[in-house]
Amino acid sequence: MAVRNGIVTLTTDFGTVDGFAGALRGAVLGAAPGLRVVDITHDVPPRSVRDGAFALRCAAPCFPPGTVHLGVVDPGVGSDRRLLVIVDHGMQHVYVGPDNGLFSYVLDVARAFETHEIDIGAFPSASATFHGRDILGPVAGRIAGGADPLAVGPPVAEPLRLPRHVEPMGAREGRVLQVDRFGNLVTTLRPLGGDVVVDVGGVRVARHVRCYAELVPGEPGWYVGSLGLIEVALGDGSAAQAIQRGLDAPVRLL
Amino acid sequence: MAVRNGIVTLTTDFGTVDGFAGALRGAVLGAAPGLRVVDITHDVPPRSVRDGAFALRCAAPCFPPGTVHLGVVDPGVGSDRRLLVIVDHGMQHVYVGPDNGLFSYVLDVARAFETHEIDIGAFPSASATFHGRDILGPVAGRIAGGADPLAVGPPVAEPLRLPRHVEPMGAREGRVLQVDRFGNLVTTLRPLGGDVVVDVGGVRVARHVRCYAELVPGEPGWYVGSLGLIEVALGDGSAAQAIQRGLDAPVRLL
Amino acid sequence: MAVRNGIVTLTTDFGTVDGFAGALRGAVLGAAPGLRVVDITHDVPPRSVRDGAFALRCAAPCFPPGTVHLGVVDPGVGSDRRLLVIVDHGMQHVYVGPDNGLFSYVLDVARAFETHEIDIGAFPSASATFHGRDILGPVAGRIAGGADPLAVGPPVAEPLRLPRHVEPMGAREGRVLQVDRFGNLVTTLRPLGGDVVVDVGGVRVARHVRCYAELVPGEPGWYVGSLGLIEVALGDGSAAQAIQRGLDAPVRLL
Repeated sequence: MAVRNGIVTLTTDFGTVDGFAGALRGAVLGAAPGLRVVDITHDVPPRSVRDGAFALRCAAPCFPPGTVHLGVVDPGVGSDRRLLVIVDHGMQHVYVGPDNGLFSYVLDVARAFETHEIDIGAFPSASATFHGRDILGPVAGRIAGGADPLAVGPPVAEPLRLPRHVEPMGAREGRVLQVDRFGNLVTTLRPLGGDVVVDVGGVRVARHVRCYAELVPGEPGWYVGSLGLIEVALGDGSAAQAIQRGLDAPVRLL
Repeated sequence: MAVRNGIVTLTTDFGTVDGFAGALRGAVLGAAPGLRVVDITHDVPPRSVRDGAFALRCAAPCFPPGTVHLGVVDPGVGSDRRLLVIVDHGMQHVYVGPDNGLFSYVLDVARAFETHEIDIGAFPSASATFHGRDILGPVAGRIAGGADPLAVGPPVAEPLRLPRHVEPMGAREGRVLQVDRFGNLVTTLRPLGGDVVVDVGGVRVARHVRCYAELVPGEPGWYVGSLGLIEVALGDGSAAQAIQRGLDAPVRLL
Repeated sequence: MAVRNGIVTLTTDFGTVDGFAGALRGAVLGAAPGLRVVDITHDVPPRSVRDGAFALRCAAPCFPPGTVHLGVVDPGVGSDRRLLVIVDHGMQHVYVGPDNGLFSYVLDVARAFETHEIDIGAFPSASATFHGRDILGPVAGRIAGGADPLAVGPPVAEPLRLPRHVEPMGAREGRVLQVDRFGNLVTTLRPLGGDVVVDVGGVRVARHVRCYAELVPGEPGWYVGSLGLIEVALGDGSAAQAIQRGLDAPVRLL
């Protein structure tokens, strides 16, 4: 993994009111002042590793080879959870963050990746409350600046993983992966190639559209969203509210 | 339009909670990894082309020659609305986005501009739901990286325009263009050079101040705002609430 | 102060809905198109110089030598308050902003700094309502681009200062400096090196933990936060609400 492009993306639950996101940006740039820090989001709901994993899945693959993705949604800061550096050899991306599943969804689509544990002992003056600033930011910055990502510490086996975010091609049974801000239900299922009825927890949605704009107000329907996954939506409203189904509801293609 | 400065600004209604703004940033950088992406805002109220146009009018002209402005407030995504590249030869700026009026207010002050339609057929794998990521971001990135903005597709006549955001010099009749977050009423009228009374939908505001800070609490007044337009404000409160006038209310200078 | 790294940080109360933060970014880049603008925050509560000072204290020291920090929390815009450039010779940082105390907390920890007043007369076309765009942004941009920060105008004595944000080492009496979004009470006191009881306005907190995660739900405790200051927190809740103490409450170490 020799290629670098000088970009470090940030995905955190720090919010934007305090100086924490700014401190993280500074910590990255402090390690290599010529880098460019680019937000994915700082508005992951507090401590929601799953939402952070989803934001990374939506955005990280859009970045060019040689990007370093720093993720700090880390409810276990100060505990003995591990800090990881993961190299995706296919995408030529590096992920830096806690070992809590935050990178699960991007790893679901990685062909070959390698994981090393950051040697925390190399950061004796790190605080117990802000590893993003004191360890993860500097590590991400150094790697983006050219340092060897595999030199941060010993190799480890599999990082902690959330349940897979996408079913195998051809699968007919899945679940609701995410409810977005509009109340759309993103499922773990891919299209089968023909028209189907989408059953969400017993509610059947038959209308198939190319995009949201084709639904008339109040009409439920499904389309293939920007991640290639089946989404259930309601014209001019919230599908989640209208059909009273949400996260993890079972989904079947009939 | 040869000059480029490597800057791409972003104006969207994506919000900052999900990974969409991050995906757009990645799509721009994916086209040319050395660029700098700079936000104007991602918090345009959902689907409000008019608010996006106003944010662009406030911010875009502050950027140096050679900037590319990417705007994605696009309620018609997936429909047959056109995607445009507009070159402002005076400012040496390029605008990239949907043909729905989003660039109206910056074009109101442009001396000479040229419009081309993006050939969507050149993006066969684009999704139907995220043209920002799949078409507009890459186009903006390539142009900022040096590609010819006029080569994206055939020239077209006028882009779709919202009603003009500023009356001709010397005009005495206009309307409320924008209500900002403080309840200030930004009008479409420019100052006449002397003291006048500003009539907003029948409510007369006579007090003329240099800036907001000169108003005492509860006192209504007007001043020339940072866009050179007459604004009506209330000391320590919301003029919109106090005088019960808002968007598009008629304004006269007496 | 010869070193420059091309970074300008931004700390404002502009919010992110309108185009104002974008206009400020453009104004900085308009002065020197090759710079990188990096947010600390735009969500300082409106007109709260103190919150802006705290955000700067949290984030600014993380940035590398040669950074220019632009702060625009400026309720006095248009009045006769001064605009300053402050050079911190120890950190090799430059601060640009209004003379209202915004840089107090970073200056509390500066070893040697020098202050000059910006000659506003050199900006004859500046608006009365947006000095960030018309004066401060361009000044910050030029300095980050290499201009001499001390050439902006005459030297002045002390900038306006808020009360110190940190007590001397060994002090046992202080106050609540900040209530963060989680309801944690950040105090002005540093740890004494052993276990103590923290008395906040008459409420005693004895439990000492390394980090927030060690507190069980509903349990109050204290730890040394990421600024090296004693913080009082509540497991899974708001200490501010639970003990009914807030900003400026007296704090003693027993």
